[in-house]
Amino acid sequence: MAYFGKKKDIIRIEVTLGVDIGGTNTVFGYVDSKGRCFTSATIPTNAHQPAEQFFERLHESAKALFGTIQEKCELMGIGVGAPNANYYRGTIESPPNLSWEYVNVVAEMDKYYHLPVATTNDANAAALGEMLFGAARGMKDFIVITLGTGLGSGIVANGELIYGADGYAGEIGHTTVDLKGRECGCGRRGCLETYVSATGICRTVQDLICNSNEPSDLRYVSFENLTSKMIYDAAQRGDRLALEAFDYTGKILGIKLADSVAHVSPEAVIFFGGLASAGDLIFKPTKQSMEEHLFGIFKNKVKLLPSGLAGGNTAVLGASALIWNDLKKNIEK
Amino acid sequence: MAYFGKKKDIIRIEVTLGVDIGGTNTVFGYVDSKGRCFTSATIPTNAHQPAEQFFERLHESAKALFGTIQEKCELMGIGVGAPNANYYRGTIESPPNLSWEYVNVVAEMDKYYHLPVATTNDANAAALGEMLFGAARGMKDFIVITLGTGLGSGIVANGELIYGADGYAGEIGHTTVDLKGRECGCGRRGCLETYVSATGICRTVQDLICNSNEPSDLRYVSFENLTSKMIYDAAQRGDRLALEAFDYTGKILGIKLADSVAHVSPEAVIFFGGLASAGDLIFKPTKQSMEEHLFGIFKNKVKLLPSGLAGGNTAVLGASALIWNDLKKNIEK
Repeated sequence: MAYFGKKKDIIRIEVTLGVDIGGTNTVFGYVDSKGRCFTSATIPTNAHQPAEQFFERLHESAKALFGTIQEKCELMGIGVGAPNANYYRGTIESPPNLSWEYVNVVAEMDKYYHLPVATTNDANAAALGEMLFGAARGMKDFIVITLGTGLGSGIVANGELIYGADGYAGEIGHTTVDLKGRECGCGRRGCLETYVSATGICRTVQDLICNSNEPSDLRYVSFENLTSKMIYDAAQRGDRLALEAFDYTGKILGIKLADSVAHVSPEAVIFFGGLASAGDLIFKPTKQSMEEHLFGIFKNKVKLLPSGLAGGNTAVLGASALIWNDLKKNIEK
Repeated sequence: MAYFGKKKDIIRIEVTLGVDIGGTNTVFGYVDSKGRCFTSATIPTNAHQPAEQFFERLHESAKALFGTIQEKCELMGIGVGAPNANYYRGTIESPPNLSWEYVNVVAEMDKYYHLPVATTNDANAAALGEMLFGAARGMKDFIVITLGTGLGSGIVANGELIYGADGYAGEIGHTTVDLKGRECGCGRRGCLETYVSATGICRTVQDLICNSNEPSDLRYVSFENLTSKMIYDAAQRGDRLALEAFDYTGKILGIKLADSVAHVSPEAVIFFGGLASAGDLIFKPTKQSMEEHLFGIFKNKVKLLPSGLAGGNTAVLGASALIWNDLKKNIEK
């Protein structure tokens, strides 16, 4: 896919700009079609300022960053991962954590670039990242679960990401575990992400603290100060309450994954994000519970895998994969 | 797509043979690309005899039936709907209700025909039937729920049926309502189909009979003699216990549909089969419960629709749609 550029007939490497807009910071970088990130940078999102200002700052920083690689690279398109992003409309709509009510991402980018632009949420971007560059290479049917503050998901079937009728498919974090369960930020009760996420496991620790007499260092930490990292560290030290919290988290996740498998029968479920790096502490109880609850025909078929994306720039790789995937589809047409 | 045939240069109508293999009877018929069924017939399945004999009988009967239309029709392919059929392998594997352990449907058909053959389960066939000929025409994302003895489902995303990694995707009937709930034929407990199906609503009536003092004619019917039709007739007469059974069925279905919507965000959920013909008795409580439990972003978007396939030959239309869809895809390639 390389070509002879205008200057000096140098063969230039095609790259896309991957942008991940977060509540606090925005990370962006240039990634080639093999998932190599040549360079990346971070700017504060400053979401209290108007979105137009953000995109202007983003463009300036991205342009400066491109200056460092433009001798050898050609920019092909831009992929943007953002909360509540809608792939069909190219917009961000009522994002949690950002004060922008409605942003037309494609229109904002069009002010500065004349290139293909696509946007979707971070979990969908992660799924495409795994498909193009990570653990799902060669797979046509899989689910990516992102475990961060909440639980996000991206579902791929027949080799295509499922956006659904409205562009918002893949909200497994808001399937119901218990109709009378924990209050969720979405206004409902008992959503999966209130149990299975960085905050979910903190809530579980509090629940175990009040309902058991198991001694634990975590009893000395307030809920507001408690982090999933502390629970992980405690579990590594053999803290039984922390270990039980991981077991419970995996048990609930396994039960609900069995439901997800019954829908789309994936080859694998791939875990992405902070809590997923807890390894066997979360994988083992999840696998055991999923197998226990699977409909017979699906037993012992579905792999549970950690993300295959190189650390550090995973969100940028996902956003970049979004637009690489579109560019690839256009070539196939 | 019509062409000038060899005989007398007559323009012949292209048809496919749609076959629906049931536990007792097998229905088959010839259907054109617009979903018109020209002629159909039924033979006993006699599943206690070897599968080879069945396919021989099927071929003889189908051939005789084709004799009545062969002057004006040309056969293009064969679609077979059957329990536990695997689209990828072209097989029926350990079907419930049939004593055949393993049947290679494509190989059996190849003995008699030199035409494309495809097989899948009845719910997937129904989904393709709705997409090509019924309520889902023009839709790219929808779910079909078949309500018979059990609860089957077929899920379409991005305009393609989801078969999943192993060919068995779409088992929403075996997602879990209650881990300690009703025993399911699959060996697990609390599967959706133990609540929402013709047998599920009969179980609910028994539950209401023992747990309430509500008078009802249904108290005089044994469980083995009770049918969903009796419950429907009682509800039509204003029997409050029967009405409550429909409400409960819809409530459970709505809760689980909210989970399904969170996965694939369909434009519509289409109901197919006996219990679905109860109309508002089942649609109203299902809609109300689904809306109540939907994640905010999906509220007031998803249509609940009855099957759009013409009565009588719905299973034949589904099986025929399976192979029409394959033939169409081959043309597009």
